[in-house]
Formats: sequence, structure tokens, C-alpha cells
Amino acid sequence: MTDLRKTVENFWAFAEARDWSAFADTLAEDVVYTLPQTRERISGRARYTEFNREYPGDWHVRIERIVAEPSQVVTWTHFTVGLEEMYAVSFFTGDASGRISAVTDFWPEPYEPPAGRDHLTERY
Amino acid sequence: MTDLRKTVENFWAFAEARDWSAFADTLAEDVVYTLPQTRERISGRARYTEFNREYPGDWHVRIERIVAEPSQVVTWTHFTVGLEEMYAVSFFTGDASGRISAVTDFWPEPYEPPAGRDHLTERY
Repeated sequence: MTDLRKTVENFWAFAEARDWSAFADTLAEDVVYTLPQTRERISGRARYTEFNREYPGDWHVRIERIVAEPSQVVTWTHFTVGLEEMYAVSFFTGDASGRISAVTDFWPEPYEPPAGRDHLTERY
Repeated sequence: MTDLRKTVENFWAFAEARDWSAFADTLAEDVVYTLPQTRERISGRARYTEFNREYPGDWHVRIERIVAEPSQVVTWTHFTVGLEEMYAVSFFTGDASGRISAVTDFWPEPYEPPAGRDHLTERY
């Protein structure tokens, strides 16, 4: 168990609780948030906290899996918004004080399997 | 650096080299591969190796980032197939002998940013 792991667990718990002051405290002042799928970036604690605070919908999040090194952590999270469910994968980097200095999110969507591989796969 | 980390680095290097015998050696006999986006599952070393061997296109893969604990590893990989580029995120679990016993892959696709947040974001 590393400090950054605990910080990231708090990050998600405070987001779920809409405790934006405590959420902001997990972040470095110059945190950078990156969404490679949309090529969006958000710079700074205030903007990134506001982005989360403004995020629309009655969303709820739980950690499905977490993998942690001392200075980097990955979470696989499960989100629900009403009846809709989705997954996110987030890569966190920590700074020397144990705060989160970078977050990179991926939001994978369901898709239909390509043809020609059902001799190897089963559906669940 | 854990053994599973090294095994996972080899897994990708052997896939890139199309060395399917060495690739299979990184896997537990009863490895389970899961694709949550398509709800597909592949069970067993032989089938999972064959799935990779048959995968169409002249694809090339490199590890962008790796996060490792002793018994679980995550990779963020970058794939190219001709001019097409894509990312994958893979969660690996190891067994007691250091082989890969489970792989869960996510393949996030590009999408357009939702409206109403460009006061906080920049595009890159």
C-alpha cells in the first residue's frame, strides 16, 4: 500500500461524495488531466475540480480494480448514470508530496465483435 | 521490477516478433482472456495464442506505460496497423509460477467532446 494508492482511493471517494474541497486537496496545484480519445486537456487544480463538479448526470463511481506503484496508480472504475453503466481506466501520477500531478482517462465503449473469430471466443 | 512485469514485457515483445511459441510460454495453461466491450471471452493457452496469431493486419505494438505490482500488471499500449493508430489498456494477473493467468483488454476509440465544457478544456 503506497501513499499515492490511498490518495487515489480518496480521490474517487470524495468524487462520489461530491466533497469538492477534499477532492481538490488530493490534487497538485498544477495537475494536468488528459483525455486521449477526445484530445482534450485540462490544466490546474481549480479547473479540473470544476470539470468534475460540473459533470452532468447523477453519476456514481466505484473502484473495480486498482494497481499501484509508489508514484503511479491505475484504476479501473465502474460508473452508473441512472440505468446506464460504463467503465473508465485512469492512469495517475504522483508528485513528491503525494498529491496527484497527472490523470489520463480512457472511456471504452461497447462494440460488436468483428467477424471470423467466434471459433475461439464465447460471449458472456 | 517484479517477475510478472518482466513476463508482461516479454508477452508484448513476443507478440510483436510473432514468436508464438515463446508467447504461449508466458501464459498459464488455463489463462482467461476477457474483452468487456464485446463481452467476449477466450479460455486456455492454445486458443488465446491462436487468437493473437490469427489477428488480421500488419499490426505493431509498443508499450507506452506499465504499472506493476507483484501479481498484477497494467499496460497502456500503442498499436499501429498501416496508417491507423490505436491504444489498448490491458490488465494482467499472474499465477504462482509467474505466468499470466488472466488478461482483460480495453480498446478505447476516439470520440467528439460533449458540448458545454470548452470553458475548461483545451484541444491538443
